[in-house]
Amino acid sequence: MSAPLYVKIAENVTRHVARGTLRPGDRVPSLRQLSRQQRVSISTALQAYLWLESRGYLEARPQSGFYVRTPFASLIPEPQFEAGSTARPATGTDAILADVIESANDPASIPFGAGSADAELFPHRKLNLILRRVINRQPLHSMRYDFPPGAEPLRRQIARRAPDYGCDFSPRDVVVTSGALEAVNLSLRAVARPGDVIAVESPTYFGIIGSVTSLGMKLIEIPTHPQEGMDLAELERAIRKHHVKACITMTNSHNPLGYVLSDKYKRALVELTARFDLPVIEDDIYGDLAFQDPRPRTAKSFDRKGLVLLCTSFSKILCPGFRLGWVIAGRFRAEVERLKLLTTLATGSLPQVVIAEFLETGGYDRHLKKLRTTLAGQVQGVRQAIAKYFPEGTRISRPAGGHMLWIELPPRIDTLKLHKRAMAEHISILPGTVFSATGRYRNYIRINCGQRWSDAHDRALLTLGRLCERVH
Amino acid sequence: MSAPLYVKIAENVTRHVARGTLRPGDRVPSLRQLSRQQRVSISTALQAYLWLESRGYLEARPQSGFYVRTPFASLIPEPQFEAGSTARPATGTDAILADVIESANDPASIPFGAGSADAELFPHRKLNLILRRVINRQPLHSMRYDFPPGAEPLRRQIARRAPDYGCDFSPRDVVVTSGALEAVNLSLRAVARPGDVIAVESPTYFGIIGSVTSLGMKLIEIPTHPQEGMDLAELERAIRKHHVKACITMTNSHNPLGYVLSDKYKRALVELTARFDLPVIEDDIYGDLAFQDPRPRTAKSFDRKGLVLLCTSFSKILCPGFRLGWVIAGRFRAEVERLKLLTTLATGSLPQVVIAEFLETGGYDRHLKKLRTTLAGQVQGVRQAIAKYFPEGTRISRPAGGHMLWIELPPRIDTLKLHKRAMAEHISILPGTVFSATGRYRNYIRINCGQRWSDAHDRALLTLGRLCERVH
Repeated sequence: MSAPLYVKIAENVTRHVARGTLRPGDRVPSLRQLSRQQRVSISTALQAYLWLESRGYLEARPQSGFYVRTPFASLIPEPQFEAGSTARPATGTDAILADVIESANDPASIPFGAGSADAELFPHRKLNLILRRVINRQPLHSMRYDFPPGAEPLRRQIARRAPDYGCDFSPRDVVVTSGALEAVNLSLRAVARPGDVIAVESPTYFGIIGSVTSLGMKLIEIPTHPQEGMDLAELERAIRKHHVKACITMTNSHNPLGYVLSDKYKRALVELTARFDLPVIEDDIYGDLAFQDPRPRTAKSFDRKGLVLLCTSFSKILCPGFRLGWVIAGRFRAEVERLKLLTTLATGSLPQVVIAEFLETGGYDRHLKKLRTTLAGQVQGVRQAIAKYFPEGTRISRPAGGHMLWIELPPRIDTLKLHKRAMAEHISILPGTVFSATGRYRNYIRINCGQRWSDAHDRALLTLGRLCERVH
Repeated sequence: MSAPLYVKIAENVTRHVARGTLRPGDRVPSLRQLSRQQRVSISTALQAYLWLESRGYLEARPQSGFYVRTPFASLIPEPQFEAGSTARPATGTDAILADVIESANDPASIPFGAGSADAELFPHRKLNLILRRVINRQPLHSMRYDFPPGAEPLRRQIARRAPDYGCDFSPRDVVVTSGALEAVNLSLRAVARPGDVIAVESPTYFGIIGSVTSLGMKLIEIPTHPQEGMDLAELERAIRKHHVKACITMTNSHNPLGYVLSDKYKRALVELTARFDLPVIEDDIYGDLAFQDPRPRTAKSFDRKGLVLLCTSFSKILCPGFRLGWVIAGRFRAEVERLKLLTTLATGSLPQVVIAEFLETGGYDRHLKKLRTTLAGQVQGVRQAIAKYFPEGTRISRPAGGHMLWIELPPRIDTLKLHKRAMAEHISILPGTVFSATGRYRNYIRINCGQRWSDAHDRALLTLGRLCERVH
């Protein structure tokens, strides 16, 4: 597969930098200029700049344009490796999540702590149109259980998209779930038992930490490079030493790190784990939101032994409230299906019909491209504001997908205190400690950039920046 | 609370039997006659007869009327008690359930094995009306997560119905779940850990057996009388001897036994378990379908220590495909809520809005009364047909609620074989073995009477009766 057009355009730009035609700090051609020079659309030009931006070659300045960055430097230090950590989630995680949920329900609040994008960014008009059509056409739509593996038309539409993930699977391989988190839970229960050790990235999504520990399994947090993923040598050491029973990973648009890992890494991860017959649960929930087109392939695409369980959902692209996810569970399909039946019996019927029809007729790819561009722009906007308002020494991640920023504040700042102060100002953030079970990341926060930008958001970041000066 | 009108009417009838005015085999007055004699509506007269029928005083004969039964005799022998049974579900349960699910999806099939009533019996017109209204009024209905404990308007409506269950709880006590089975799963995980022993009725719903065992917990099956519930002395012995950590019970419209237990029993169960601080998970999913009005109270209504977790759903009354249930978890509320967040994150948003509005404006009680009467009539029809077509020695349960019949066939009949033969004839049934983890009930079947009666159903029962003669 040859590189997409915008990557070629982007490479032309880097060539200018390599040749010294463009130097750090220089403004690159405007989108209009680039589009004219290279005979591509404005949208392709934007994609090229976002791609370069995500890789650290450019930075965008509001109202001004893109500039060549000072040379790449690791923004976040590598996390420490603490072997054999089997702690429960940091004390207070429940209380923090309760705060964040409360804030999400409060219209007066700025929910930087939330996990989903702005409601207005989802294709609600198209979805409602289909909903009305289905209700008229199939009035008995919800009067039966849609038993596992789930509605066939939906599974067929999902299987049609298999090449997007670099995969080749059939409708029979798909098990529909009530969201990606149920997919991860069922996968965990299918491959491991209480007491087993599960390897995860550090930092990682708090829902993964909570799932593992609430199932009575033990966590081992593998050191994870902010751009290059888990240290595979450390993973191998952990597998040998701690009898790891499964590994959970996000290879695309990692939450909270934001990276998209290379095909080389994905292949290496799958080859390593396959040597130990180790199941890998790949959470791809933000994968479609990688800032590149076509989207990146999955680790699952390198799986030859049926050991990778690919979990995802429509919650981050189409609508969170439908609670619709799916899993390709390889050799564990029958067990995942059995556990689904014994846990929630069936997935909601109406969402399955509606999403199947959206996938068939709704312009998923068009919507996705628009959403991805919007979110990439918003991520950029928030980064700029943070760089302006936050104290010196702040380091910000450079996401290649999704809509989360992972921010390291100066070590003196206790973000649990910052969170409390921010809540009092009707601003939610997620303190870093919830992304580890070992009390790490005390001076980190995760910021959701999925909300539509407004003056209120800008003011909220200003406020956060000022609060940083006051919490020690 | 004084007895409802139809019970008084019914008692007048039994007085006639006691006095010898009516003898076994006699036809009782027609509904029209009774209604005129007692100055009540035809519907109250029918309720009186159904109540008498459910208690074994009358039997209905198709095209003919109700007759005084020969004296009550225990229809089903008491199950044997096998202490400390910790087996996994009977081998083959998964395959049987797969067959039954396949049959439920096959329009050419008669799904006597299914768990829900006919799609046409649910209030789909009213639900669709509300659906359209919600879509128009709140176009962003599904564009956010509805985090635990769930949508406030729904929890408020549920709390308003608390007196129906004999309970007093507030919206804050309700945790919304993706169906009753999720409620049971979360409750189990909140009160017990892998390896713990859980006491259940025998026979019991296969979903309960599967939930317990798939969570790595152990089952102990308590001998259960077909009319009077678990043997509480045996339960106490099990608690003392096997360190039982929780008990799961269905006190109303038991699946598959069909009984409704007395208030005295419910109080005794709660007092016994409270002495040991033992949590009781009460699955009330068919409770609203008890053939009496008002519906029976719950064991939860006698709970003074917050130890009873009341689990139920709207799947058997309003619509299975919405996947909407709830739990009142007493002192375990916070833990159930936490586990909900970590397992499926949120429950579907749209069903919560729609059902809340249905409860407020949809005539829930009117619908319920109609559904209950329909199902009671269908249960009666199926019983008559089975009595006519099945071999001598067949014993049939007399449900006081729900739409299941529990049928004991002569001991020579292996119902696993019967199931296979029936599937070949496009008829599904549930063999008794799936209702126990100990291989018991090999000559039992469960029959769902929720399908609207038709000639095809009658023929299918005739076929089943004939197959019984051929499988040994």
